[in-house]
Amino acid sequence: MTLDEALALDAADPLAHCRERFALPDGVIYLDGNSLGALPRAAAAAMADTVERQWGDDLIASWNKYDWIGAPQRLGDRIAPLIGAGKGEVLVGDSTSINLFKLLAAALAARPGRSTILSETGNFPTDLYIAQGLTGLTGATLRTVEADAVEGAIDGDTAVVMLTHVDYRGGRRHDMARLTAAAHAAGALMLWDLSHSAGAMAVDLRAAGADLAVGCGYKYLNGGPGAPAFLYVAERLQDQLASPLSGWLGHAEPFAFEPDYRPAPGIARFQAGTPSILAMAALEAGLATFDGVSMSDLEAKSRALSDLFIALVEERCPDLTLASPRGSRGSHLVFAHPHAFALMQALIGRGVIGDYREPDLVRFGFAPLYNSFADVWRAIAVMADLLTSRAYDQPHFRQRQRVT
Amino acid sequence: MTLDEALALDAADPLAHCRERFALPDGVIYLDGNSLGALPRAAAAAMADTVERQWGDDLIASWNKYDWIGAPQRLGDRIAPLIGAGKGEVLVGDSTSINLFKLLAAALAARPGRSTILSETGNFPTDLYIAQGLTGLTGATLRTVEADAVEGAIDGDTAVVMLTHVDYRGGRRHDMARLTAAAHAAGALMLWDLSHSAGAMAVDLRAAGADLAVGCGYKYLNGGPGAPAFLYVAERLQDQLASPLSGWLGHAEPFAFEPDYRPAPGIARFQAGTPSILAMAALEAGLATFDGVSMSDLEAKSRALSDLFIALVEERCPDLTLASPRGSRGSHLVFAHPHAFALMQALIGRGVIGDYREPDLVRFGFAPLYNSFADVWRAIAVMADLLTSRAYDQPHFRQRQRVT
Repeated sequence: MTLDEALALDAADPLAHCRERFALPDGVIYLDGNSLGALPRAAAAAMADTVERQWGDDLIASWNKYDWIGAPQRLGDRIAPLIGAGKGEVLVGDSTSINLFKLLAAALAARPGRSTILSETGNFPTDLYIAQGLTGLTGATLRTVEADAVEGAIDGDTAVVMLTHVDYRGGRRHDMARLTAAAHAAGALMLWDLSHSAGAMAVDLRAAGADLAVGCGYKYLNGGPGAPAFLYVAERLQDQLASPLSGWLGHAEPFAFEPDYRPAPGIARFQAGTPSILAMAALEAGLATFDGVSMSDLEAKSRALSDLFIALVEERCPDLTLASPRGSRGSHLVFAHPHAFALMQALIGRGVIGDYREPDLVRFGFAPLYNSFADVWRAIAVMADLLTSRAYDQPHFRQRQRVT
Repeated sequence: MTLDEALALDAADPLAHCRERFALPDGVIYLDGNSLGALPRAAAAAMADTVERQWGDDLIASWNKYDWIGAPQRLGDRIAPLIGAGKGEVLVGDSTSINLFKLLAAALAARPGRSTILSETGNFPTDLYIAQGLTGLTGATLRTVEADAVEGAIDGDTAVVMLTHVDYRGGRRHDMARLTAAAHAAGALMLWDLSHSAGAMAVDLRAAGADLAVGCGYKYLNGGPGAPAFLYVAERLQDQLASPLSGWLGHAEPFAFEPDYRPAPGIARFQAGTPSILAMAALEAGLATFDGVSMSDLEAKSRALSDLFIALVEERCPDLTLASPRGSRGSHLVFAHPHAFALMQALIGRGVIGDYREPDLVRFGFAPLYNSFADVWRAIAVMADLLTSRAYDQPHFRQRQRVT
């Protein structure tokens, strides 16, 4: 494939116009939107308005005047169509870790007599850590098995199955409908972490019959560094579940200042303390980058970008070995290389931003709203040149530093 | 007292220059900094830089380049001198509610064989709600008694005493050193909620021997709506306590992606998930408004402002009854009035911003960095006029709306 052919794919891309919604820096090919989504152009003005006019001029009155108080549910309702949820089923706030704790604890309480949280060994570590923190408090057990063994491991003691839809490293995608059905067949609840799938593909929680989900606001949702996360509780379950992180904004009447906690009806009960309104404003600008976007177009483009990346790597970068599945996968890819760390540093030095994952993986994410086929072509051209010239093999590229 | 005399007090005020650090709207006397601190002038530029340059241009690299990763501890170290804590004893992130949950759970685990969280009946409701959520998970018990009875109620089953230093309604201030000593004498840990005191008075956790504390970033710390909160763990206790909200950023090696949680050394172990960097940037601007400010000047001004307010109310607004203590108290005051709600609405309509608290209280907060003696004089002039004319007694002022 030539660059002209890649540009022709961009010309035919129904999502090509979305790239203009982002302020991408010159000279950079950004393939790390799976770690931190790019800046929406509208975010700067939204933040300035929230800071200067809302906070500065209207001060405390803004909680009502600009509906700050409604942000967690308003933003949740904007995320809902991206993940196949209904109005009133999604709430924004806190971090993915905190939201996971709320829902795991609620799930355990809703399945009395069952004591196991079942997950996969390679799940994103914070998901396992949070489950460990909860089991340390409650006496429940976290059991982890290899990804392929999860379905067979669900049993009568399983209160909740906790899986990440798309694996953060290799990008393997679980069959959401099948595993949810398996959990239900055994009487367990099913909790999905959508951090690496929401905003990059056509997630359909309702079609899968999913019970619970959490996800990240700062990856494909473009909400800014450390953006508030979201949680989903199927409407049919909301009044049976309660959050142990029972802060005042989840109370039925937060401003009555009653001495005892009474959970609010519906999804609002999963709020805890007061959310950052500035962080909410940035996430709202991030969610607006999805306006008018069809989820099937999004998924098709994600697949086309990553398929093209694989094809070009295999044609032009034979030293790299695909370590992601060729079949069902998310919107990022990993490749093994003996000098993966130095290679990624050299790529970053040439303006191709991906990231490194232990022990020998380079990772590239494809954000369908702003990455182009030409981005893929140009990234491969840079990488092929580095590999051929071995220009990555220099001491300063080998120096480790912390990267999120 | 005349307005000229109030202006003379301002001229002699060692903190008068701090008012210029805030962008206060024209025509407003803002006496609600105890609910939402005013906008620091430097915040707008700090936010724009964080959004446009750091997030927009440098993207994922900013975690290292601008030390986003260090923000929770860096901001904690800036709060430390405001509350009498040392370097490495304060951490910023999450909400007050979430931080309270972390520390209450850690305290219970550190006092095996004891099962009671002791608090006061009138504590801020979210503190009680969070304790209720935790006891629901663990089988521990929350016991509440009237404020005066707390000291006598500490016993051999008390794992932790949880009190708010300054009461959110009436403003009563507890004797931190005395109650901490009483908790220790009974073998219990002492946890202080500093939400209504940090940034308004000379808090000295170390001098009091306090074990644990939490507090709010969006009141007197001027961190913006829903700003990240803080927590304090005395250095001597840090390695004995662990957070049950054990997210990846509290891990000893978050980027090693190990399957099992290992708490980081020191205060970092109380981090959970990824914090909002935009919210952190605003709070950092808020904390900079304290640069060069002596805590004893701060406390003296808080007292002088509120003493003057009481004196002028008693002279000019005899229909109001002081419902705050005359003695040890915080930086806000409440007064009872039979038409408190309508009176506060009328005050707000005339540009004097305080708030209403059930059932019949008007509340006024005094932020020593930006409130002036002239603010107090002018607020009283408006209130005296409203009370004399009964101009508050109109249907549209009686209409209730939700106010945080």
